[in-house]
Amino acid sequence: MAGRINHRWLLKSRPQGMLTGDEFEWNEAPVDEPGPGQFLVQVAYVSCDPAMRGWMTDRRSYVPPVAIGEVMRAGGAGTVIASNHPGFAVGDLVSGTPGWQEYAVTDGRGLLPMRKLPPGTDLRASLGVLGGTGLTAYFGLLDIARPQPGETVVVSGAAGATGSIAGQIAKIKGCRVVGIAGGPEKCRWIVDELGFDAAIDYKSESVSHRLRETCPNGIDVYFDNVGGEILNAVLARINTKARIALCGGISTYNASAPVPGPANYMQLVVTRSRMEGFLVSDYAARFDEAIAEMTRWIDEGRLISRDTVLEGLEEAPRALRMLFEGGNTGKLLVSVLPPA
Amino acid sequence: MAGRINHRWLLKSRPQGMLTGDEFEWNEAPVDEPGPGQFLVQVAYVSCDPAMRGWMTDRRSYVPPVAIGEVMRAGGAGTVIASNHPGFAVGDLVSGTPGWQEYAVTDGRGLLPMRKLPPGTDLRASLGVLGGTGLTAYFGLLDIARPQPGETVVVSGAAGATGSIAGQIAKIKGCRVVGIAGGPEKCRWIVDELGFDAAIDYKSESVSHRLRETCPNGIDVYFDNVGGEILNAVLARINTKARIALCGGISTYNASAPVPGPANYMQLVVTRSRMEGFLVSDYAARFDEAIAEMTRWIDEGRLISRDTVLEGLEEAPRALRMLFEGGNTGKLLVSVLPPA
Repeated sequence: MAGRINHRWLLKSRPQGMLTGDEFEWNEAPVDEPGPGQFLVQVAYVSCDPAMRGWMTDRRSYVPPVAIGEVMRAGGAGTVIASNHPGFAVGDLVSGTPGWQEYAVTDGRGLLPMRKLPPGTDLRASLGVLGGTGLTAYFGLLDIARPQPGETVVVSGAAGATGSIAGQIAKIKGCRVVGIAGGPEKCRWIVDELGFDAAIDYKSESVSHRLRETCPNGIDVYFDNVGGEILNAVLARINTKARIALCGGISTYNASAPVPGPANYMQLVVTRSRMEGFLVSDYAARFDEAIAEMTRWIDEGRLISRDTVLEGLEEAPRALRMLFEGGNTGKLLVSVLPPA
Repeated sequence: MAGRINHRWLLKSRPQGMLTGDEFEWNEAPVDEPGPGQFLVQVAYVSCDPAMRGWMTDRRSYVPPVAIGEVMRAGGAGTVIASNHPGFAVGDLVSGTPGWQEYAVTDGRGLLPMRKLPPGTDLRASLGVLGGTGLTAYFGLLDIARPQPGETVVVSGAAGATGSIAGQIAKIKGCRVVGIAGGPEKCRWIVDELGFDAAIDYKSESVSHRLRETCPNGIDVYFDNVGGEILNAVLARINTKARIALCGGISTYNASAPVPGPANYMQLVVTRSRMEGFLVSDYAARFDEAIAEMTRWIDEGRLISRDTVLEGLEEAPRALRMLFEGGNTGKLLVSVLPPA
């Protein structure tokens, strides 16, 4: 695209402990023409997700780390503006993993492959409640944790993008739901607006004590986004045949030394329980089914979502730090402003 | 039973850290007559199992702790010598949970209920390979871990009662099997006599380094009897969709301070793997099926077991300490000598 400039964030160095923002380098380059089988996306929103911290670290995982000098890997959504790909046409709305940049040349492949969205789709929702985070909540809760009506479900990171959806789906399935979140405003939101039965403010309350109060019959399902001491406190209260869906461990991602594992893991034996990890990308073949069901719940007013949006791609590193500091409620996005 | 004396070990105090043997009190009492619905068992063998350490501690678990002053709970087998129970007759061989005593009056209920054994049954086998420990191996491996032919299975406590059986069943199912045990003699036994593909001597070798050598394609199944650092080292090497059957954590049972959990547990997310606890007592309805299959494997020479037997009920506390010091190979039993 002759003359257009692509602004982008490259990974400059690997973080040690908490992100400083200096790990990224602001860079510009000409926008490439798509080659055979490729198309060009003008990115409208990029996503900030806890998993991105892991992609910055050089260790064996489910995807290779982002290379130094490479565009930072990130979910995102936008519009196709040029195409040599038979499956994508100019004007198509898409979501996938374009990275932190204004323009992405892609063959459609990626950690979450590029998906064509119906015309008129809300691009923010396509990244949040009807995108990677909502789908993570859906499959982690329903496929891994499998809550039954009347069971007690605890969700950590409960005011975050994934936790807020997981808790609401558990309510839809007839469970008693307790959310753990940081600060009174987040706790108020999940109870008063999302309909959780109770909230625990881990920043000002004893999680162990409050789990005892709010889960008098023990815990059947735990949807874990945070790991660390909260996971350990939950393990002490699980019921027979409990299920722990391990979604993430955000409390540990920025640690500069190894974090001890959950000392109470032997409760899994005593209670004959299961702790299981999962990745949403394994469920790609079932995304349409899940999106259809969640769309119905949204239309019925039973599934509510909130986005926190920072304006301008320049804000992306600051947004990612905000995520780990708990500054967001719901899905954290960065809008990529169109060129002036 | 007029005139007969019942020697028995009572729990005198709750242990702090490693057992000293002083937690038990040698005691004698007249042998009671069985009441209505009860029968009297003359005990021939009692069992020493890692789980007994947990029963001595006063905390919420799958069974109440043994009360101070109560006969120490233990598996055992013997002969019915008096009965007011319609299901048990004088002369019947039985195994169950009679406790550390020479005579047990029982209604048949217990952690493992009293089971009538076919005439001629080997009472030692009824507590070992064809009893609680063998059944633990069978259901933990086949129902929880579900190994597939060609997969790599790692077993810890591999020369112990349960581990030695679990590893052999994995071989029967067509897996590559690596055992972790303490000392060259145990390692030689599991490879040369039981047919494991490799052994790791955790007392003299780096488990992490040797796991890398012996499991070049990663680990698909881990049958864990020990917990602690070995569990952590295994987690670092698990494959996608691995299964960890949590049977026990003997390395931690005598700790006087909380033991850190496995720091590498987040590998469960990266690999989408499952860690699950189980108790053999949940499978009582399927014991006959398992015993029939294991009996066939024994008859075919494919399943070998070894017992370590100490003579005399007086030895029971010493035997239990020996268990935690790794002094036994295979099933550890105490023979209860008949009165002179």
